Amino acid sequence: MKKVQVAIIGSGPSGLLLGQLLYKAGIDNLILEQRSKEYVLARIRAGIIEQIAQDLLDEAGVGARMHREGLVHHGIELAFKGERHRIDMHRLTGGKSVMVYGQTEITHDLMDAREAEGLPTVYEAAHVSIHDFDGARPRVRYEKDGRTHEIECDFIAGCDGFHGVCRASVPAQAIKTYERVYPFGWLGILSDTPPVSDELIYTHHERGFALCSMRSPTRSRHYVQVPLTEKVEDWSDERFWDELRARLDPVAAERLVTGPSIEKSIAPLRSFVAEPMRFGRLFLAGDAAHIVPPTGAKGLNLAASDVRYLSRALIEHYREGSSAGLDHYSQKALRRIWKAERFSWYMTSLLHRFPEHGEFGQKIQEAELDYLVHSEAASTSLAENYVGLPFED
Amino acid sequence: MKKVQVAIIGSGPSGLLLGQLLYKAGIDNLILEQRSKEYVLARIRAGIIEQIAQDLLDEAGVGARMHREGLVHHGIELAFKGERHRIDMHRLTGGKSVMVYGQTEITHDLMDAREAEGLPTVYEAAHVSIHDFDGARPRVRYEKDGRTHEIECDFIAGCDGFHGVCRASVPAQAIKTYERVYPFGWLGILSDTPPVSDELIYTHHERGFALCSMRSPTRSRHYVQVPLTEKVEDWSDERFWDELRARLDPVAAERLVTGPSIEKSIAPLRSFVAEPMRFGRLFLAGDAAHIVPPTGAKGLNLAASDVRYLSRALIEHYREGSSAGLDHYSQKALRRIWKAERFSWYMTSLLHRFPEHGEFGQKIQEAELDYLVHSEAASTSLAENYVGLPFED
Repeated sequence: MKKVQVAIIGSGPSGLLLGQLLYKAGIDNLILEQRSKEYVLARIRAGIIEQIAQDLLDEAGVGARMHREGLVHHGIELAFKGERHRIDMHRLTGGKSVMVYGQTEITHDLMDAREAEGLPTVYEAAHVSIHDFDGARPRVRYEKDGRTHEIECDFIAGCDGFHGVCRASVPAQAIKTYERVYPFGWLGILSDTPPVSDELIYTHHERGFALCSMRSPTRSRHYVQVPLTEKVEDWSDERFWDELRARLDPVAAERLVTGPSIEKSIAPLRSFVAEPMRFGRLFLAGDAAHIVPPTGAKGLNLAASDVRYLSRALIEHYREGSSAGLDHYSQKALRRIWKAERFSWYMTSLLHRFPEHGEFGQKIQEAELDYLVHSEAASTSLAENYVGLPFED
Repeated sequence: MKKVQVAIIGSGPSGLLLGQLLYKAGIDNLILEQRSKEYVLARIRAGIIEQIAQDLLDEAGVGARMHREGLVHHGIELAFKGERHRIDMHRLTGGKSVMVYGQTEITHDLMDAREAEGLPTVYEAAHVSIHDFDGARPRVRYEKDGRTHEIECDFIAGCDGFHGVCRASVPAQAIKTYERVYPFGWLGILSDTPPVSDELIYTHHERGFALCSMRSPTRSRHYVQVPLTEKVEDWSDERFWDELRARLDPVAAERLVTGPSIEKSIAPLRSFVAEPMRFGRLFLAGDAAHIVPPTGAKGLNLAASDVRYLSRALIEHYREGSSAGLDHYSQKALRRIWKAERFSWYMTSLLHRFPEHGEFGQKIQEAELDYLVHSEAASTSLAENYVGLPFED
């Protein structure tokens, strides 16, 4: 039977980054991915990278293109009641910033690095299953090219996302989940049009939330909040642009350049946490253990935070024979996760229209925004969360 | 027909404070109160006085006993997961504090001052009604000792609380109201027992919110969150103390001294705002226009804030013939009110158990508390709201 130290399930950014960091530390690992490489690369996801995630990509040796092509953002804009207010994150956090660089690009860079080193990834691995992770010798099984393969490993890293097999393999009584599903989604389009502004504009409007984001100086990413009953087929590009324009402040509406969409989709918003994140020799990381709504852009950054804790714990185990990091992984990761869950829930609650909260809820949002942009303390609180809270270890 | 410059409806702290400030500026005023003086004085209400309210009481010449007998508080304690964390408001706000002094005492001091100056208050004024406030000469009518009295005035100040006649006299189409009713109340008792701590302890607990407050070094005021279906008759003193003790952190529970209750009652929690606050020559102030849940102790302080705006506007009108202050009263007062509504809603949402928010909601509260007590920015934001946001004019 083939053996590997760490079997990683999933070749999204969590799994790839973990694999790269382990490889750098001399720990051999195999990635199993049920989808094709092309499928993974075609997924459009987040694009705001915190400093801690940038640092980790640098540590993994894959940060060069990000630093070359990414856009450093020092602030965001909050729009409400027809006016925009800038939150100067850089000043408020003593010099911190975020990087605008698509998750797709990060995945690309990580795949390239992995291939360049000749590290093994099995794409289109069918019927992946994990076994005996509560014992000393876990195994991973999958089918490929009509044959069943089995791998023996020391540890399994479940980086296979919300719908993955890893969390689903844990006995129900061993896991506790917390969830909130929001009564709306984000209709997003990607287009080769210049961004409305140099920075992201988060807009609170009675018609619903809107976000003007970007991937590069020539590629925009825009979103509008829509009821979950909406179907993407019913949204022509023109209808999308009209709806977006109706929600923007007058200056942004004037500056909006429209064009054909490259991608258009509706994503539901969900908050979800599974506790704990360790089950014997199985460790969950990223979306496999938790989901945040996209408001505040914490999803990818939380995955990086998990990978930081997990990679250090595994390296400590192999180098020093200590299980301290592994034993504390779940607790440490979860404390940070809940803070990001809180922030993502807060940003979502602050900026979206919740019909069930009525006009009182709408007025409370406006009062909070009014307070937020005029209070140094409240602006600083927002900024420190947006750029990423410091690690406590 | 008797004439007066300003007819004030209601002899709670808003009406009394307004009357005193107007008198000091040479503006004659009459207070009409449907209840007896004894009834008004027997009402147990808030006890946390912001600096701006202290300043206003000093300006009205009634602050001496408050400064002598009141307790200056420099911080509060937040308890969750069995531990207490102090928010050092004094340090975080650059030296601000609040005063612990019962609203009943303030009412007493204001009534004493009003009597000492021989200013007119009609208690037990029956069937108070207000007329023609949309014209140039408003009138106020009431019955007393079997006779009907009518007063002509320049302005009517509606300081008659949530259930008062003033807001109810405004045509429905001229007023817009915003409301949230919470699915729980506060069961509170007053007792001649020493407080648990020198400062207030706000406790988040899975059994529900609890607050250890006080009126003096020998008189405590304690509260526990209860469902609205609870009846005060079902709560013996012993049951109350047991429930309170079960929610406190171990150190506070150990220090709790129990004793017979002097007063015991259940108060519902409500957020309410009526817009606008001016209708011709009628101006609403305090609870007549808005209600906050008691978490954060903003009710009395907001009333003082309204009275500050309104007294200055009326004085400006009589001294300079300018209507600017009166014209902006509603807008200015409401901007401040909505910020206090937001804070009161936030503190209520943060600290109470909301069964309908489920376990996710509970975890988000714990994450927020964990973040709050460890972030300088978030602690400062809480502190600046608790001591009272600065006036913007």
